[in-house]
Amino acid sequence: MESSEEQKLQVRKLDLSDKSKGFIELLQQLTVCDSVSDKDFEDRFRELNARAEDHRVLVIEDDRSGKIVATGSVFIERKFIRNCGKVGHIEDVVVDANARGMQLGKKIINALTDYAHSLGCYKVILDCNVENKAFYEKCGYKQKEIQMVKYFI
Amino acid sequence: MESSEEQKLQVRKLDLSDKSKGFIELLQQLTVCDSVSDKDFEDRFRELNARAEDHRVLVIEDDRSGKIVATGSVFIERKFIRNCGKVGHIEDVVVDANARGMQLGKKIINALTDYAHSLGCYKVILDCNVENKAFYEKCGYKQKEIQMVKYFI
Repeated sequence: MESSEEQKLQVRKLDLSDKSKGFIELLQQLTVCDSVSDKDFEDRFRELNARAEDHRVLVIEDDRSGKIVATGSVFIERKFIRNCGKVGHIEDVVVDANARGMQLGKKIINALTDYAHSLGCYKVILDCNVENKAFYEKCGYKQKEIQMVKYFI
Repeated sequence: MESSEEQKLQVRKLDLSDKSKGFIELLQQLTVCDSVSDKDFEDRFRELNARAEDHRVLVIEDDRSGKIVATGSVFIERKFIRNCGKVGHIEDVVVDANARGMQLGKKIINALTDYAHSLGCYKVILDCNVENKAFYEKCGYKQKEIQMVKYFI
């Protein structure tokens, strides 16, 4: 039962067809995200695909419903410090409100973290609300710095 | 006097020749950064140059000494949220310990922020120590989230 359940909730790369599977609606649960036209989605998808090694968007599709129920992205920064090291930056992690309690968030974070590790990053970082700190600690992350932001809009 | 002083401390893009002008030694004031071979530096420089729009490293050279006295970088993340928006991430900001008090840090931050703005980013973010919070507030930044990190080494 457990393994059959797991087979239906595999992590994979974002696909162009995921727009029709509720990918944008899922992101709308995270933050401001108006509906995106098919053309804008495809343009951005191709831009990211042209940077596929440096920027990976992962999703979990629920094979029963055909809906995307979790997503997260990681991009790879190339530095001069740390002997020309690389750092993974995790962004835009969200699990569908109806799919909580199945460890999908942890599954996505682990997959993004492993991807950054496999590319030779010396660390992975992310910014989150204080409320989500405990979740990321369960994923092996520790609080270090503070995030500063400047908005243009 | 002031304007003549300023002419000698202009912000510009990192150049391949900056390795011989103390660029790596400057980064060593920031964090762990062993000496980098000419080949490794050139390889990383060319990798970043191939992504020049997405990743900009800025420096300030003191024309009197021929040394790089300040640097910072910004890379541009392309998202699906915020109507396929873009976010600038500022990293690796450092001012030479002997060049403090000339507002070079603010100059670098402003230039990085302006660059991200010019590319249409809806915000710029950065992570810093609590001790540097007041400096970034003077640059127009506000504290928002917390940074979590996982090290692989």
